Amino acid sequence: MTTTPTDYAPTARTVPSRARQRAHYDRETVHSILDQAYVCHLGFIRDGAPVVLPTLFGRVGEILYVHGSTGSRPLLGARTTDPGLPVCLTVTHVDGLVLARSAFHHSMNYRSVVVHGTAYQVTDEAECRLALDALVDHVVPGRSADSRPADAKELAATAVIRLDLNEVSAKVRTGGPNDDAEDLGLPFWAGVVPVAPAYGTPVPAQDLAPGIAVPDYLAAL
Amino acid sequence: MTTTPTDYAPTARTVPSRARQRAHYDRETVHSILDQAYVCHLGFIRDGAPVVLPTLFGRVGEILYVHGSTGSRPLLGARTTDPGLPVCLTVTHVDGLVLARSAFHHSMNYRSVVVHGTAYQVTDEAECRLALDALVDHVVPGRSADSRPADAKELAATAVIRLDLNEVSAKVRTGGPNDDAEDLGLPFWAGVVPVAPAYGTPVPAQDLAPGIAVPDYLAAL
Repeated sequence: MTTTPTDYAPTARTVPSRARQRAHYDRETVHSILDQAYVCHLGFIRDGAPVVLPTLFGRVGEILYVHGSTGSRPLLGARTTDPGLPVCLTVTHVDGLVLARSAFHHSMNYRSVVVHGTAYQVTDEAECRLALDALVDHVVPGRSADSRPADAKELAATAVIRLDLNEVSAKVRTGGPNDDAEDLGLPFWAGVVPVAPAYGTPVPAQDLAPGIAVPDYLAAL
Repeated sequence: MTTTPTDYAPTARTVPSRARQRAHYDRETVHSILDQAYVCHLGFIRDGAPVVLPTLFGRVGEILYVHGSTGSRPLLGARTTDPGLPVCLTVTHVDGLVLARSAFHHSMNYRSVVVHGTAYQVTDEAECRLALDALVDHVVPGRSADSRPADAKELAATAVIRLDLNEVSAKVRTGGPNDDAEDLGLPFWAGVVPVAPAYGTPVPAQDLAPGIAVPDYLAAL
């Protein structure tokens, strides 16, 4: 674990208690892990207990945006809590199943980002629109320009919260199993099974108007 | 949302505030979503703030097990907190990117399970061993019988916590985009891009002893 002046500054809660060599604080690594994700897991406290919900998110520079119905509970919390809603936003990619000779050293290859901070509701309409575009483009880059933007009624029904990227760390495990030397001769297969998301052929909506081809930006996925 | 006597009983925090038709409480749906996952996202409270960490887990009947170093922070919490550590354990599969004509109706097809409860440290050695086998078999079914079990030193270095499946719900979205009727004629492609995890060819460890073939249970993945 080494950091440079442009990195996110490590804090007590972003320095892991173990496997510190897997921790990263550079913005390029963090942004790349965030941008490849479809969903994050958003943690917050409700009635004194932790809650973790999967949700879509978008990124604009050093700001993450999460949206939801104006009636959804975490977003209500961000709106009514002063000063904001303490959250932890986590993104994880599984890259491989790591099989060691010993049960103990079984592991995963993965890339994760954990963001600690306080979420605030976005009240500026221009920023809301920017956030909603970012959310759509996060799922499919280029898509927001090829769909109908939110109208006034939809904007009013959508709550957007923002979380600044300040207290952030990435954790990355790569490579093969780390068996103990005395286990290397055991008669068990050891290695890595790679895992990655795979896209299927796009399935048009049943009511898609005739003559609309699958857009090029989907072929790039 | 309908439930039967054998379902998990819905509670205030497992009935969603919106999209209730997506909520499921039957054990078969919940177990199936849990068992297809590699990692869960475990939420807990540390120093008054929410924390969400990705971690491996296993299931034995109606009990989930999570393990870690005896020095890891959440597990220390489960050990030292009386009566246990309040947690929220969430598993999410993304099955498709849902592209609607309107930005507003963009969505994901997904299956998620959210478990609320209190985690307790497992102190019985036989239960610890059962849990560790379940953790290994959760990643690759059949693997625990084809690896070296934990020895006394490894067992002592591993903390296991258990979380009973009581307050549990699944949420599932399937199908195409739900555009408003007046948008169906817009000139934007709409439909679903399927997503699923894909396994690559197993990569043997560089120090794998000669003559050990890729086991059959990996071919079944």
